[in-house]
Amino acid sequence: MTIVKILEIVAILVGAFSGFIEARSKKMDVVGIFTVAFITAFGGGTLRDILLDRRPLFWVEHQEYAILIFLLAMVAAPAIRTLRKIISERLIVTADALGLGLFSIVGVSQALEAGMPLFIASMMGVITGIFGGVLRDIVCNEIPMVLRDGKPYAICSFAGCWMYLLMQKTGVPADFALWSSALGITAFRMVTWAKGVKIE
Amino acid sequence: MTIVKILEIVAILVGAFSGFIEARSKKMDVVGIFTVAFITAFGGGTLRDILLDRRPLFWVEHQEYAILIFLLAMVAAPAIRTLRKIISERLIVTADALGLGLFSIVGVSQALEAGMPLFIASMMGVITGIFGGVLRDIVCNEIPMVLRDGKPYAICSFAGCWMYLLMQKTGVPADFALWSSALGITAFRMVTWAKGVKIE
Amino acid sequence: MTIVKILEIVAILVGAFSGFIEARSKKMDVVGIFTVAFITAFGGGTLRDILLDRRPLFWVEHQEYAILIFLLAMVAAPAIRTLRKIISERLIVTADALGLGLFSIVGVSQALEAGMPLFIASMMGVITGIFGGVLRDIVCNEIPMVLRDGKPYAICSFAGCWMYLLMQKTGVPADFALWSSALGITAFRMVTWAKGVKIE
Repeated sequence: MTIVKILEIVAILVGAFSGFIEARSKKMDVVGIFTVAFITAFGGGTLRDILLDRRPLFWVEHQEYAILIFLLAMVAAPAIRTLRKIISERLIVTADALGLGLFSIVGVSQALEAGMPLFIASMMGVITGIFGGVLRDIVCNEIPMVLRDGKPYAICSFAGCWMYLLMQKTGVPADFALWSSALGITAFRMVTWAKGVKIE
Repeated sequence: MTIVKILEIVAILVGAFSGFIEARSKKMDVVGIFTVAFITAFGGGTLRDILLDRRPLFWVEHQEYAILIFLLAMVAAPAIRTLRKIISERLIVTADALGLGLFSIVGVSQALEAGMPLFIASMMGVITGIFGGVLRDIVCNEIPMVLRDGKPYAICSFAGCWMYLLMQKTGVPADFALWSSALGITAFRMVTWAKGVKIE
Repeated sequence: MTIVKILEIVAILVGAFSGFIEARSKKMDVVGIFTVAFITAFGGGTLRDILLDRRPLFWVEHQEYAILIFLLAMVAAPAIRTLRKIISERLIVTADALGLGLFSIVGVSQALEAGMPLFIASMMGVITGIFGGVLRDIVCNEIPMVLRDGKPYAICSFAGCWMYLLMQKTGVPADFALWSSALGITAFRMVTWAKGVKIE
């Protein structure tokens, strides 16, 4: 199992976990927990694929992820109180920052492959990185957190997508461009979070 | 006119009717009533078709349904108080349960035709059956009812979709598989509703 | 630069501006301001293109519009208080009415080109005209204004789309049909707004 595969699963699980927490805090039932977790984990990539008209969707090709979230949703309700005690906020932010980096760069590179112009490609990267959380908050009847809490999040993704695009154009090897910009997003997010940076 | 056609129209009308009621309770105008009714009746199937990339959409091919909802929306505002008196909750739940069964099985069978793996096909069945109501509640600024009221609803759809998939794989005649699992969903929903069963 | 091009830019800017105002009133940060402005300006056309399965999307082909909104979002936060003083409500309604007319007729004509039946084509016109605002309000956690304030808005678009469709069928020159019905929508909206007409 490659490192990308592991990171991908971590990113999906983190997305699902934040969905579990929000769905529980809204007193949803097990169907709501699964639905919100699924939307959080796959919403960004699904919206990107619909906008780009790419099929099959990621989670359609890999039904094992959907099944995994389904099984987790069934045990999530009793387990979530225990889990929240074990798992610190720092751990959640770290895993989420890894997911943000990885999903964003996957999004921007797929948009480039699909022939998108540069600015649109960077938007697709950000959409892939953040729209799972946006859709989660819409379903849970909240104003999306990433649009209002003033902490750098989408901006980290945006900066990292441009870092990737510039490296692509200047002939940096593809693998290095991908990894360094994904990790750049993760680092940018974690440092600004740890320092309590606010934009505007 | 076949029995399927009649059931289909009943299912759409029931969806539209629940949209009328929610839009009225939010004091929407006639445009809102039509929009919410339309989204409730066709939202689940439309989302499924977008995810599967099937075109033309059901309501695009059959514009008579859109016209019907349009005409009903124009008379709905004055009529809705009277209608709510005549129509009992039991009748609404019954018709809605018929719609849930029919739409779910149509959804899962179309997903199979499109070559989806089994778990994804069952999800597409559930999406077709329940997402009209989810989108209705999002537009009306509510947390979707099916995700939080704890009564078996999506679960009835899910169980029936698997019943259909198992019958398909074991060589049960297609017609019988379709009808028995659609009615199974309807019966499952109505019995649990009548008994006041709660999950979790 | 043609008159259509100028009107198009005005329509997009007006959409973005109403997004700026709503995002600010919800205390969103700069990412939220850009996202809401973008969704307001392009949401209707994007939904229509997804329903019709048309690609590339309008804003993907013309990334200059996305870049323009991005730059405006960065200056919008400090400027918005000043702008609201300079720009009167009448001016906003006028520009918005121009946008409603133009977007609606572009929507209905593209739906006709895609072979849609008449009623569906008129719905696509209305969707193009109004759904940017609907999605803006959903993201901002409000019941969509056009569905509940009882002032003719979607109805103006609907009437103008049918005016266009009738002129198309009766052999009126295409250019004249397009312009007169777009301006008809604008005039209908402005007159009913000025007179304070309410439906229902």
